[in-house]
Amino acid sequence: MPTKRIARRVTLASRPVGLPSVNNFKIESFSVNSPQAEEVLVKVTHFSLDPYMRGRMDDAASYAAPVKLGEVMEAGAVGRVEESESEGIEVGDWVYGRMGWTESAVIDGSLIQKIPASMSPKSLSLGALGMPGFTGWWGLSHHGRPKAGETLVVGAVTGPVGSMVVQLAKRLGLKTIGIAGSEKKCTLAIDKFGVDHCLNHREFNSARELQSALKGVAPDGIDIYFENVGGKVFEAVAPQMNEFGRVVVCGMVSWYNEGAMGTEAQTESISVANLWRNILVKKLSVNGFIISDHWSHYPKFVSNMQPLITSGEIQYIEDMVAGIENAPNAFIGLLQGRNFGKLIVEV
Amino acid sequence: MPTKRIARRVTLASRPVGLPSVNNFKIESFSVNSPQAEEVLVKVTHFSLDPYMRGRMDDAASYAAPVKLGEVMEAGAVGRVEESESEGIEVGDWVYGRMGWTESAVIDGSLIQKIPASMSPKSLSLGALGMPGFTGWWGLSHHGRPKAGETLVVGAVTGPVGSMVVQLAKRLGLKTIGIAGSEKKCTLAIDKFGVDHCLNHREFNSARELQSALKGVAPDGIDIYFENVGGKVFEAVAPQMNEFGRVVVCGMVSWYNEGAMGTEAQTESISVANLWRNILVKKLSVNGFIISDHWSHYPKFVSNMQPLITSGEIQYIEDMVAGIENAPNAFIGLLQGRNFGKLIVEV
Repeated sequence: MPTKRIARRVTLASRPVGLPSVNNFKIESFSVNSPQAEEVLVKVTHFSLDPYMRGRMDDAASYAAPVKLGEVMEAGAVGRVEESESEGIEVGDWVYGRMGWTESAVIDGSLIQKIPASMSPKSLSLGALGMPGFTGWWGLSHHGRPKAGETLVVGAVTGPVGSMVVQLAKRLGLKTIGIAGSEKKCTLAIDKFGVDHCLNHREFNSARELQSALKGVAPDGIDIYFENVGGKVFEAVAPQMNEFGRVVVCGMVSWYNEGAMGTEAQTESISVANLWRNILVKKLSVNGFIISDHWSHYPKFVSNMQPLITSGEIQYIEDMVAGIENAPNAFIGLLQGRNFGKLIVEV
Repeated sequence: MPTKRIARRVTLASRPVGLPSVNNFKIESFSVNSPQAEEVLVKVTHFSLDPYMRGRMDDAASYAAPVKLGEVMEAGAVGRVEESESEGIEVGDWVYGRMGWTESAVIDGSLIQKIPASMSPKSLSLGALGMPGFTGWWGLSHHGRPKAGETLVVGAVTGPVGSMVVQLAKRLGLKTIGIAGSEKKCTLAIDKFGVDHCLNHREFNSARELQSALKGVAPDGIDIYFENVGGKVFEAVAPQMNEFGRVVVCGMVSWYNEGAMGTEAQTESISVANLWRNILVKKLSVNGFIISDHWSHYPKFVSNMQPLITSGEIQYIEDMVAGIENAPNAFIGLLQGRNFGKLIVEV
């Protein structure tokens, strides 16, 4: 008989309007069950906080079902197996799975993936070697179709997606322009991630002002826009895309707090007809994607990238928050751009 | 010494605001020069009228330079060579080239293409076997990536692009829904081009009403939208795209009269953020293209399609206007949807 154990988790207490507050979350204790057939019990060591989780808090069709009221908040998490009723998974194995904002989880063995023993630290499986890094790698190579000499722009450049994108693009010989939300982040983007230029979007009062600044650093136009922020950055970039440009759409965090994940956001300088005409006239290729549709490519990503990360050729930053009780505030800060690099909760 | 010849042509007299009027055009006589080295003299028999020409009348960057005031209006044209100073081109050859709204043209031999002697009538080189048909064929196969069982929607379905698209899609086992501007056109779309459903967009007062009607005929959503009209049709279709849907953007005629080729058009039911979010959440692939970038595929298109058109397996409609003096009115009618099928001026 296993002993009764208590752990903590964070559930959705109420649905936010606009930016979430801590009252939308509830930190609660629960008793951990033993795994049944095919299941494993995982002691979570880290879970990830990502902008897309804002979408799950709305009761609206997104690319995934919303989190129900009272349910544990969704997240990718990493941990060690404590008990296993699943063949091929041993006690002590490190695994990744969508276990949520929790200290402990019972999950079907088919829903987790083993993390290579060689991966160090294991939290890499949530950032540079996890979903965000994979998103950058796959989106850039598959939809971005980068060519040496081209110019790439990405927002949230110090984040785990953006920093992967610019470093890969740089290695391929592209000119890289990052956009970030502070001077400090811009310095980091240049010094650590090697971007050619970085613009602090908070220095510009309008999309048109940001657009002028972009023209200054990208006088030959933009060939690839890796879209993960939306808003002012999107508006500033869209009119400056070159012929045959590619727009890779993987997120739009700046709009997530407006209406049902952005549906009520307004643009100041661009209309639908405007945007649509631009796609035609510039012969753009615009592709939305969600990385969870492409897990079959994940092993290739890890085998390509792990050596580069271990050797330091690809850099990353983890912004570590200690204690599950601090997850709601950290998440709210993430939506406001207050984090530095990949935001991870250490349980 | 060649004798002095006089021919007529149509030039751009002034730039239109909104829908063009006949006063924006000038019909003038000119004396036809003899061809110089490398040139040929072509007696034009037919030229094409197409919605994209509206964009050339504005003094704004489009995918091609605007027509200058006093210059001959641009058009693809077909005719017979009367004199040739170009190697490999003989008197009597039938050729296609961008000769414009004119009865006669001197043009560099490198800028024309011979039309197969087997093509009958030769005006096919302006429609079903010309740029419009090629646009439909290439856009559908390259960007549409059609699969049997999927649902496709196209506007201006009785036009030369739309009618090619639905017939090719039907042959590949797709469910096809056409949209047209009258009951008569819808009857034609069903009887002649075999679409499964046709909606007359003039029956609906708003994009939302058209959207409801579309839901009725496409309850499983839309996988491919071949965009050649913009406006209300675009707004009605966009929210109903299925996951992994493809939007092939080759035109947006309904917006061409608004501002600089649509930049001032307003949408009633969809915002930029809305549209952008839809691309992400549905993982859409949106591709703009201009067929003139892809001429290298043209011979393959002709060799594939000519037998199907000759045998009647692929149908087409030519709307023939007699006399160059009637071209301006016919073009204005085209922008209002008054034509039936491919609009051609017989010179």
